[in-house]
Amino acid sequence: MSLLAQTLEKITPPDYNCEELAQQRLDNLTKPPGSLGVLEDIARRLAGMQGTPLPRLPQEKVSLVLAGDHGVVAEGVSAFPQEVTPQMVLNFLRGGAAINVLARRAGARVVVADIGVAGPVIAHEGLVNCRVKAGTDNFVHGPAMSRQEAVTALETGITLLKQQVKQRPALVGIGEMGIGNTTASTAVLAAFSGLPAEQITGRGTGIDETRRQHKAAVVERALKVNRPDARDGLDVLAKVGGLEIAGMAGIILGCAAEKIPVVLDGFISCAAALVARSLAPLSAAYMLASHRSQEPGHAIMLEMLGLKPMLQMAMRLGEGTGAALAFPIIEAAICIINEMATFAEAGVSQGE
Amino acid sequence: MSLLAQTLEKITPPDYNCEELAQQRLDNLTKPPGSLGVLEDIARRLAGMQGTPLPRLPQEKVSLVLAGDHGVVAEGVSAFPQEVTPQMVLNFLRGGAAINVLARRAGARVVVADIGVAGPVIAHEGLVNCRVKAGTDNFVHGPAMSRQEAVTALETGITLLKQQVKQRPALVGIGEMGIGNTTASTAVLAAFSGLPAEQITGRGTGIDETRRQHKAAVVERALKVNRPDARDGLDVLAKVGGLEIAGMAGIILGCAAEKIPVVLDGFISCAAALVARSLAPLSAAYMLASHRSQEPGHAIMLEMLGLKPMLQMAMRLGEGTGAALAFPIIEAAICIINEMATFAEAGVSQGE
Repeated sequence: MSLLAQTLEKITPPDYNCEELAQQRLDNLTKPPGSLGVLEDIARRLAGMQGTPLPRLPQEKVSLVLAGDHGVVAEGVSAFPQEVTPQMVLNFLRGGAAINVLARRAGARVVVADIGVAGPVIAHEGLVNCRVKAGTDNFVHGPAMSRQEAVTALETGITLLKQQVKQRPALVGIGEMGIGNTTASTAVLAAFSGLPAEQITGRGTGIDETRRQHKAAVVERALKVNRPDARDGLDVLAKVGGLEIAGMAGIILGCAAEKIPVVLDGFISCAAALVARSLAPLSAAYMLASHRSQEPGHAIMLEMLGLKPMLQMAMRLGEGTGAALAFPIIEAAICIINEMATFAEAGVSQGE
Repeated sequence: MSLLAQTLEKITPPDYNCEELAQQRLDNLTKPPGSLGVLEDIARRLAGMQGTPLPRLPQEKVSLVLAGDHGVVAEGVSAFPQEVTPQMVLNFLRGGAAINVLARRAGARVVVADIGVAGPVIAHEGLVNCRVKAGTDNFVHGPAMSRQEAVTALETGITLLKQQVKQRPALVGIGEMGIGNTTASTAVLAAFSGLPAEQITGRGTGIDETRRQHKAAVVERALKVNRPDARDGLDVLAKVGGLEIAGMAGIILGCAAEKIPVVLDGFISCAAALVARSLAPLSAAYMLASHRSQEPGHAIMLEMLGLKPMLQMAMRLGEGTGAALAFPIIEAAICIINEMATFAEAGVSQGE
């Protein structure tokens, strides 16, 4: 059996009994029931994922950042040239990017992997070189990659997770770098949702309205040329996805199989989440949404995934920055359920 | 000159030159301009408050939690009995409440002050006893407190800040405990905004729809009886405010005078912020919004104050919990401007 098939088979629901016990404790803590909102949801869900009524703080926090390039940049969809992808990979490896700063602050390790950057191999000892292909093909002319390449990229993500995250409990954040990847993610969302590209195409890293309309037209063309099948996540991924999107989907599936909570970032990571959920609906039970970005399609994705974001800070950078910023909030939720006093312990009168 | 008058006189704008220099640096960091959203706003604003282009991490973080009672609870506006106020004060002092957990997690000290709890004096060595009055009077029959009591409570907040926060840079969060205080805060918002109570009255700690309508009617009655003058913050505060609201407004004014960023919490702390801004419009320049709560009037208050919250987590607890949860995000913003590489340093191509 293939690694992908094995991983999909291993995904089972969280422990709902532990969730229920966690909820009972949350309802007895010295606060009006439900008054800590999403913090309580997180504590309850982590109880289910970890399989214990009192979830524990992560022993290991990792931000996995995947880099990949996109043939569709030939259509002029981005404000930045493709050379920025490897340049930013080196910036990650030297510790100067936003994800480095935010992960360091959150006590998380950053792992950077080249799963599909275009151009020469990037020489740096800190880089995980797991390049499946030197960038996708331009999907306005045909599929971004073959079905086999998509499977390989998914399995690369699964393997990366296994190799890099060994301690338990763990907390994983995903992120990406890839000029052109909001275009691919928009195409993925359009394929799964059936919504018109015009409605869900945003400004990415900061293009103007004329370019945004052009980008929407490119997405529409890609859908017409490729006709991705919304019921087949692998088909959508191969035809209009990307290598880093595939890798992140693999990480999510790996996390779900290992019962590790995986913190989504922005628009691109949620495209990966849609792919993962299409391949394994139960994988959504292991996803945590960090923030709602500026990209208009992101809120729609979160809605489709049934996830409530914690942060709304008009961020639109990617790299896993939103996920890293959410780590301390998730840890705070764990502390809440473990450390707060109950009404009985504190001698506080309960409400009606 | 009174302490209040001295404090108001001392409030001057942040250093806009430092803000400008901070913005220039933010625009040169390796990310599309503006792509870190509110994180960038925070970094820029802290530069102005601290008076340096590169804001520094706080040496001291303090959550100041003020407790006060409300005569209006006699009207049956809350799901919890008034005895819960002193019970929760003891819970704060023993470290079992949500604010204790979240502040500890954020590395902040919790200071608990009784500025107006009803009933016998609370005996605990950890408590700051600065009670101005044993709860406000029921404002459906007349003013909640006298104008002089409101001034004393404001000055109590100013003094508390001075006594408790000595290091620089500092970061202050405000919070409160007081059964009935969403009713007072709703009345304060109605007075300043002119909006009908029905529109802005929420469920507080969890009352049902019938009780919510009753609460809105109580607020309307309080406004008719007292006729607070929206142009006179002290009049609004004395007539329909609360002692902990006054104390928090004092802390905000003290922070503005000392150029310390003050992190607002939910609905009640924002009522205090409206009072502070009415007394000193420039004080708003030192406020940071942490979260948007479930209380319907809170979003309106944030809009009136011109502040963008970071978190939207459906929280509605108070105590300063949202503010404490925002501390790590504010520190992350400081790290971003200090630690990220510029395009030139990292050799990354800039966009168009």
